[in-house]
Amino acid sequence: MLLAAANLTPHDITVLFLSLAVLLGLAKFLGELARKYHQPVVIGEILAGILLGPTVFAQISPDLYLWLFPAEGSTRTFLDGFSIMAVAFLLLVAGLEVDLSTIWKQGKATALVSFTGMIFPMVLGCATAWAMPELIGKNPDGELLPFVFFVGIAMSITALPVIAKILIDINLLKTDTGMLIMSAAMVNDLLGWLGFAMVLAMMQGQASDAGVVQTIALTLVFVGLMLTLGRWLFHRALPVVQAHTAWPGGVIGFILVLTMLGAAATEAIGIHAIFGAFIAGIVIGDSSHLRERTRDTIYQFVTNIFAPVFFATIGLRINFIASFDLATVLIVLVVAIVTKTCGCYLGAVWAGLSKREGWAIGFGMSARGAMEIVLGQLALKAGLINEQLFVALVIMALVTSLISGPAMQRILQRKAKRHLSDMLSDRQYISAMTATDARTAIAELAEVAAAVTKLKAADIFEATWSRELLMSTGIGNMVAVPHARLEGLARPVVVIGRSNVGIDFNAPDGDPARIICLLLAPESDDSAQLELLRMVAESLGDAPSRSAALAARGYMEFLAAVRLPEEAHVRAKT
Amino acid sequence: MLLAAANLTPHDITVLFLSLAVLLGLAKFLGELARKYHQPVVIGEILAGILLGPTVFAQISPDLYLWLFPAEGSTRTFLDGFSIMAVAFLLLVAGLEVDLSTIWKQGKATALVSFTGMIFPMVLGCATAWAMPELIGKNPDGELLPFVFFVGIAMSITALPVIAKILIDINLLKTDTGMLIMSAAMVNDLLGWLGFAMVLAMMQGQASDAGVVQTIALTLVFVGLMLTLGRWLFHRALPVVQAHTAWPGGVIGFILVLTMLGAAATEAIGIHAIFGAFIAGIVIGDSSHLRERTRDTIYQFVTNIFAPVFFATIGLRINFIASFDLATVLIVLVVAIVTKTCGCYLGAVWAGLSKREGWAIGFGMSARGAMEIVLGQLALKAGLINEQLFVALVIMALVTSLISGPAMQRILQRKAKRHLSDMLSDRQYISAMTATDARTAIAELAEVAAAVTKLKAADIFEATWSRELLMSTGIGNMVAVPHARLEGLARPVVVIGRSNVGIDFNAPDGDPARIICLLLAPESDDSAQLELLRMVAESLGDAPSRSAALAARGYMEFLAAVRLPEEAHVRAKT
Repeated sequence: MLLAAANLTPHDITVLFLSLAVLLGLAKFLGELARKYHQPVVIGEILAGILLGPTVFAQISPDLYLWLFPAEGSTRTFLDGFSIMAVAFLLLVAGLEVDLSTIWKQGKATALVSFTGMIFPMVLGCATAWAMPELIGKNPDGELLPFVFFVGIAMSITALPVIAKILIDINLLKTDTGMLIMSAAMVNDLLGWLGFAMVLAMMQGQASDAGVVQTIALTLVFVGLMLTLGRWLFHRALPVVQAHTAWPGGVIGFILVLTMLGAAATEAIGIHAIFGAFIAGIVIGDSSHLRERTRDTIYQFVTNIFAPVFFATIGLRINFIASFDLATVLIVLVVAIVTKTCGCYLGAVWAGLSKREGWAIGFGMSARGAMEIVLGQLALKAGLINEQLFVALVIMALVTSLISGPAMQRILQRKAKRHLSDMLSDRQYISAMTATDARTAIAELAEVAAAVTKLKAADIFEATWSRELLMSTGIGNMVAVPHARLEGLARPVVVIGRSNVGIDFNAPDGDPARIICLLLAPESDDSAQLELLRMVAESLGDAPSRSAALAARGYMEFLAAVRLPEEAHVRAKT
Repeated sequence: MLLAAANLTPHDITVLFLSLAVLLGLAKFLGELARKYHQPVVIGEILAGILLGPTVFAQISPDLYLWLFPAEGSTRTFLDGFSIMAVAFLLLVAGLEVDLSTIWKQGKATALVSFTGMIFPMVLGCATAWAMPELIGKNPDGELLPFVFFVGIAMSITALPVIAKILIDINLLKTDTGMLIMSAAMVNDLLGWLGFAMVLAMMQGQASDAGVVQTIALTLVFVGLMLTLGRWLFHRALPVVQAHTAWPGGVIGFILVLTMLGAAATEAIGIHAIFGAFIAGIVIGDSSHLRERTRDTIYQFVTNIFAPVFFATIGLRINFIASFDLATVLIVLVVAIVTKTCGCYLGAVWAGLSKREGWAIGFGMSARGAMEIVLGQLALKAGLINEQLFVALVIMALVTSLISGPAMQRILQRKAKRHLSDMLSDRQYISAMTATDARTAIAELAEVAAAVTKLKAADIFEATWSRELLMSTGIGNMVAVPHARLEGLARPVVVIGRSNVGIDFNAPDGDPARIICLLLAPESDDSAQLELLRMVAESLGDAPSRSAALAARGYMEFLAAVRLPEEAHVRAKT
């Protein structure tokens, strides 16, 4: 009786659920913490693994560490399988972001930037690895040639999803510069992964050159077939699936099945499964029949459930302190940043862009993020590199992702887009106002503002009330936005009061205001006032969000309500 | 170097992706096929496993079967772990459907129906199992008492998600009868799973009575704490999570972590992990802060990705033909159906409902669906029952789910709600009409209708055109609905034509019609005409769906477009 011969004992099952819950829970928690401070989420997720792994947790309690994350047995096998699935789906999402037609449209500039942006890091990376393989971190048992090529590729790859996120954050995605960065990064990724597939083929075929040639030939046939026949077939098949299956579950199932088939195919060819998942992603994302909600649901699940577990498992088996080698880290960092930024800069200037844009593109393309870590992990598992280099690659990926956004912002003098929730705290929120008319309401809010700003409540009231007398600030839908510009105010300040009874602010629709937003801007900052009004419109202009805000009991619920439309904007169609 | 000591070889990874893809792919395909013919999806999913398992595939090619689904090793371990995860998430979704306040509101009727609906099957199930344990299918090595209790519980459990789906399909969910069935089923599920937890505790504690008592005590403490303190804590914590994390990914991650912790807790107590997931689902679903989209995203992923794989693995290890025993199947079927329907009928009539309603409730509650199969599989794995009884339970679950909907429809004389897509086929669709005015357009559609109905095109045209002359049928938004009632027509018929140039149907907004729906109803059927108009309004009244329909190239894309809003209605808030 095969079914009853359970491979998993109750103890295995307990550990399996518990270890996954701990990994996912801590990775989400630290990831969200990183996001809160406007840092890449992946930093928090990797930190979770470092805390739970040999670097920290195993030092404190080796027994408990091995109980929760056994080095072998069923739980280990399941976790390994799960993270392979997770990384395949991560590459699916990366593939979905590749838009072949955008690359085509950008034409010459894309070609130049991606060419110089690849060739510089590639050549210098290979040269460095060739010159000092031991220092860089070659596995003593491995061959030199695949190692040299690997370092070149590791230096030249970028991280499409991270770059897309950074560009959205600083409001640059839909500009010419943004689209150029995206399309150059896509070409970069496509060629980089192809190159890595070649390196893996070289590894597999160590015994025979015929094996290498066969794997490379099969890889090229696979990519060629998928991007032509596969694309055509999928574009035809998708409407049939959408017409006949439950939505969006049917389509998502179909997409996952295709991704897993692609993964199985490339794994069978002799290169890694994630490569097939990536190509499947490109094919799937290319169809104009793919609906935004399908794409978004997959994106949400992969980035929020699978990716955190995968990145947390990275730190789970390696001691990041013991394997930290300063020389390796510094060499990798310097080569990675200098070659990439300078290479892209040259390409951009060559294509006729300004020097300022050139540097911005260089720093944008420099972000390595998640992809570098995936690459490094595969190389480590394949025995190509040692743990020192892996740790250096992880640090390089994190550092480049961290500096990319701020550097572009500084160079292009762009501000990160802010939201109403960024301006709020529980000290700036009145859950139930006592005021019943506009004058006392403004006075009540001014008191709160005074406590936050160190200005006098009387001055704030005076400025706001005299503005109110010029023209009422009830904007309808039960929202009012009394505002003023104040001398001596260091930064824009928002105070929000909820009124249960409603306060007449002379709104065009005649309804009394129940959410009153006091908006204070510095006298010297011309754009701050408008920016604050835009934030209010974004958060409270949305009907479901507004009614949730009206129904909020307490600050947390109010904050949750106003954040709803902000999130929608972050993941708008790229 | 622990990380490099990969447990999974490239061959393992290939098989892992391929076996999952084949399982999910075939399960989705057959599941959707079942759905198309208005049958429970789970039937198709189980059939996929039967086809891929020892019953069929292993008979045809034993080697290939064992290659794809190895009986041991890493791939087997991963698949086992995956289906345990899947079934835990399935119970999470079942728990989310339980609404404690609804149960409370329904009061006396719920109490009576759930009481008699449980006690009858329980007592008679136990009696049958006691009287003829070997015939029913006791595992010869197991103890009698847990087996007897198990059969009683297996007879008395219902399948909340299946029942909810059936009630939605026949448009009964929001009626008094529907709510009564739902709340009685919730009580039933809650008590049934508690009872099953006791049986598992009895199994675990075979060696010592102290163990049984301890497990039962811990279970009660767990349930008690979760439903009081846990509920209160979760309701407080949810807004904090929603306020501070990416949405909906952060909340979904939080929910999955809690579910896995619950699962680990109950597994550690000595009852099965799914019980903790079920209780976690009740706690989570109970919070009014849980947003509909969060619930829906989890529901979609679980029912469309995890559930199909789980149900397909059911058939993967058992030969359904070899283990089929007619006597066992018949006894189980008769006892299950008779005791459940009669028990609920008596409770309903006792509570003051009509006899007709009583029988409808009885057949509604009789649907066992997915839950019965989960229960059976656990009992089989625990060595409580043999494969004959397991197969009989699967068949009983499927048969009761199949007859439940039609029986209620017949008893209450309700029609299943139909949609525009149910009325269409590619023979009833003109992709690009040649007509340029209303008269020739109706003639063109009448020709197509004649081919489908065997009526004369001239008669159809005559009736529709004379109706059109009375009052134009352009309803705006580029849609026109020429219609007629015809003698000799057996059933309602729809023909749809798309016009690229637009045809003037004198719409109130002045725009020419580009989607013309010819609606033909039988002369004798008074409600058919209105029903057809409702279907058109449902599918084409929705703006995104209408613009997709306007842009459709070919029938498949048109069908995909009009089905979009239908799907939204199916999974409306219960």
